Amino acid sequence: MSARSVSRYARFLKACAKKPERVKIVPNNFVGIVNHHLFGTSSVFSSQAQGGQEPLTLTTEQNGIRTIYLNDPKKRNALSLAMLESLHHDLKRDQEDLRVIILKAKGHVFSAGHDLKELTPETGEDFHEKVFKTCTSVMNLIQDLDVPVIAQVNGLATAAGCQLVATCDIALVTPKSQFATPGVNVGLFCSTPGVAVGRAVPRKVALEMLFTGHPISAQDALLHGLVSKVVSEEEIERETMKIAEKICETSRRVTALGKATFYAQMSLEKRNAYRLAERIMVENLTLEDGVEGISAFIEKRKPVWSEED
Amino acid sequence: MSARSVSRYARFLKACAKKPERVKIVPNNFVGIVNHHLFGTSSVFSSQAQGGQEPLTLTTEQNGIRTIYLNDPKKRNALSLAMLESLHHDLKRDQEDLRVIILKAKGHVFSAGHDLKELTPETGEDFHEKVFKTCTSVMNLIQDLDVPVIAQVNGLATAAGCQLVATCDIALVTPKSQFATPGVNVGLFCSTPGVAVGRAVPRKVALEMLFTGHPISAQDALLHGLVSKVVSEEEIERETMKIAEKICETSRRVTALGKATFYAQMSLEKRNAYRLAERIMVENLTLEDGVEGISAFIEKRKPVWSEED
Amino acid sequence: MSARSVSRYARFLKACAKKPERVKIVPNNFVGIVNHHLFGTSSVFSSQAQGGQEPLTLTTEQNGIRTIYLNDPKKRNALSLAMLESLHHDLKRDQEDLRVIILKAKGHVFSAGHDLKELTPETGEDFHEKVFKTCTSVMNLIQDLDVPVIAQVNGLATAAGCQLVATCDIALVTPKSQFATPGVNVGLFCSTPGVAVGRAVPRKVALEMLFTGHPISAQDALLHGLVSKVVSEEEIERETMKIAEKICETSRRVTALGKATFYAQMSLEKRNAYRLAERIMVENLTLEDGVEGISAFIEKRKPVWSEED
Repeated sequence: MSARSVSRYARFLKACAKKPERVKIVPNNFVGIVNHHLFGTSSVFSSQAQGGQEPLTLTTEQNGIRTIYLNDPKKRNALSLAMLESLHHDLKRDQEDLRVIILKAKGHVFSAGHDLKELTPETGEDFHEKVFKTCTSVMNLIQDLDVPVIAQVNGLATAAGCQLVATCDIALVTPKSQFATPGVNVGLFCSTPGVAVGRAVPRKVALEMLFTGHPISAQDALLHGLVSKVVSEEEIERETMKIAEKICETSRRVTALGKATFYAQMSLEKRNAYRLAERIMVENLTLEDGVEGISAFIEKRKPVWSEED
Repeated sequence: MSARSVSRYARFLKACAKKPERVKIVPNNFVGIVNHHLFGTSSVFSSQAQGGQEPLTLTTEQNGIRTIYLNDPKKRNALSLAMLESLHHDLKRDQEDLRVIILKAKGHVFSAGHDLKELTPETGEDFHEKVFKTCTSVMNLIQDLDVPVIAQVNGLATAAGCQLVATCDIALVTPKSQFATPGVNVGLFCSTPGVAVGRAVPRKVALEMLFTGHPISAQDALLHGLVSKVVSEEEIERETMKIAEKICETSRRVTALGKATFYAQMSLEKRNAYRLAERIMVENLTLEDGVEGISAFIEKRKPVWSEED
Repeated sequence: MSARSVSRYARFLKACAKKPERVKIVPNNFVGIVNHHLFGTSSVFSSQAQGGQEPLTLTTEQNGIRTIYLNDPKKRNALSLAMLESLHHDLKRDQEDLRVIILKAKGHVFSAGHDLKELTPETGEDFHEKVFKTCTSVMNLIQDLDVPVIAQVNGLATAAGCQLVATCDIALVTPKSQFATPGVNVGLFCSTPGVAVGRAVPRKVALEMLFTGHPISAQDALLHGLVSKVVSEEEIERETMKIAEKICETSRRVTALGKATFYAQMSLEKRNAYRLAERIMVENLTLEDGVEGISAFIEKRKPVWSEED
């Protein structure tokens, strides 16, 4: 972000610090989120070089649209520790010109969740803990990123794979896609997927999925709020790109501020959420792109966002 | 409210004060809510006389049913500061014989949200802050009022206009109505509308609306919980009146207590919500209308509520 | 639960106690929940012997599937204090070999809610308080039990009867079933049912139900998340048993841990929910059935759960 923009955010943070009555309504994690936007954070994970093998994730990037493919179809795109680290790396790196991320999968299964071979007594408790912590850090990262993350699903998404779809900001899926949390069948209740799924669908839907492991259809996933849209296989690519391109037409900074604010206010009680959001609206209007957007609207012309200077 | 009823509420508050183990489960804002019901509060806003011009809101009132019209169709019923103040005034004044409020709009657009001409650098940060604070106070007022507020929508509701529909207790809409949060198009992310919309629909639906600005149909709004019913243009008036008249048949006091309790308990963790609601049920049974309602049921006759004396 | 299993849970609790940074993320009620699983609690209610009369609840039990019938069809299965106590007793007793509970009703009405004859001034405030506290304890018990509770509904469920359906983990209902919170008609707003209903359906749906008392159809209940499935009268028994039998095929301990974790994490802010759920996943993998389930999966055989030893 530009030095100017940074100083604006910094001013907001300082204003908060000076007026404790405002600070107290700011959620604990908000300063963290804003700091992240201001200063970035060093990547926890290094790039996953897969000596001689196919990389676990593949990316393409064009005009600010990064597509990340889960690329381990033989293992049903299992979220092994290496896969999670590779995905984390590809989500996080080189944010500067990035506008939107599309998450897809190679093969017939979007993702079958954790690699159960990694979760035996042999690998040990410390390793298990590392797997789940890394998984959570991927989930948190998706929502902490400046840019929207769209899942494009054409197949089965189960356990942590279902959690991944539930976590993305937007999810477009084909009619044949299915969603399940079947850990109970292998004696490992889908408790971490339940965090994301339980916040996406009504409790009764989540519990039936968790207790029985039965999959739900794309249409039921839409009905219950787990996904954004069901689109035919022929049209899903075009529909996904339409949303991605629409996002590219907006101001990167405004979208970043809006995304961070949305997740921050949703974790607050409603009246505090309004106090935070009101403050952000006022700040948004002081951003260069806020001023430009309103001017362009009044002057009936297309806005020119700051990044396009 | 009658002196008797006031003293009953006051007894409840005092009982709370004496038994701290109960007080601690009462949400911070509940005492405020109950105080509001007990003693009223002085109106923040004075009536908006529009010297020589059409008033920004119009009201009619009959048999306890107040209809408020947003009345600035040329400006697509923009929620300018003056419009918000006029709306606040009409929502809040003369509560005594009021039983229900219906919120409608003149013209083809329900409301296009804030008046962007008021949000330029020229009007300044203090003014912007006033606009957003007034908007929030309208939203909070709708849910704090003793009486239910029904939105009747026949057209487009965007940004703060969409927030207004999301905030009402009940919303009936025609099939042609649409809902959007398109602020991102003018560089002003719909963060305050996101507070209401994000609490009404699944997160994925809210985020797609916020990131793309795309409108959703009346049917999708129903599917996702943003509105209560979709009714044809021919029948919406009759359907709205049916609900309003049904509300008029109930006890004003019981409905007021029920509405305040609903919003209070929804902001609590479930077990505390139950503790509060249990207590209110016991109090409700000591209200004159509580005693009368149960008696009438047992004696198989129509209840006669206290206001009808 | 086995001594071994108890010591595992106890180890977890002690680990929490030693590492305060973990303890602080554990919800207040979680230690209670785990204690409950570890040590059980003495039943608050004694068996409701109905001297000479038909018992208010009937149970059958086979292969770990307990069916409890509300058995007061003449009084529309009113949730009188005696009925609530009888239901509490039948839900809570003899948990050891229990795997799942199905809650059904005799007669055409699932339940009409509280017995209004018990809520007159004659019975008095202390009695009213006891009724509501007992009702809440039934609702909390359903979600605190180790085993899933499935409501099977074929008829009308109103007020606390609707609350009961909303509270069960899973609910299968026939097309003719209806759901309402009509307390406002008898001057007693459905504030306690509103706790469960308001957490199951969108706010606008809940408020229209509460303000008007109008029933919603089985299909609308499904659309809005109040129930899990709508199934024809011919098939509902088979469909319910299919889910119950599926649950019986899983590990009792894993399901118990999963259910307790789901409700605990849902009451936490998302990041804390993940911290708790991660920890539980690691613990789950140390359970005998966790180890067995993963081994069986890798060895492509059916798992043999510890209870089947």
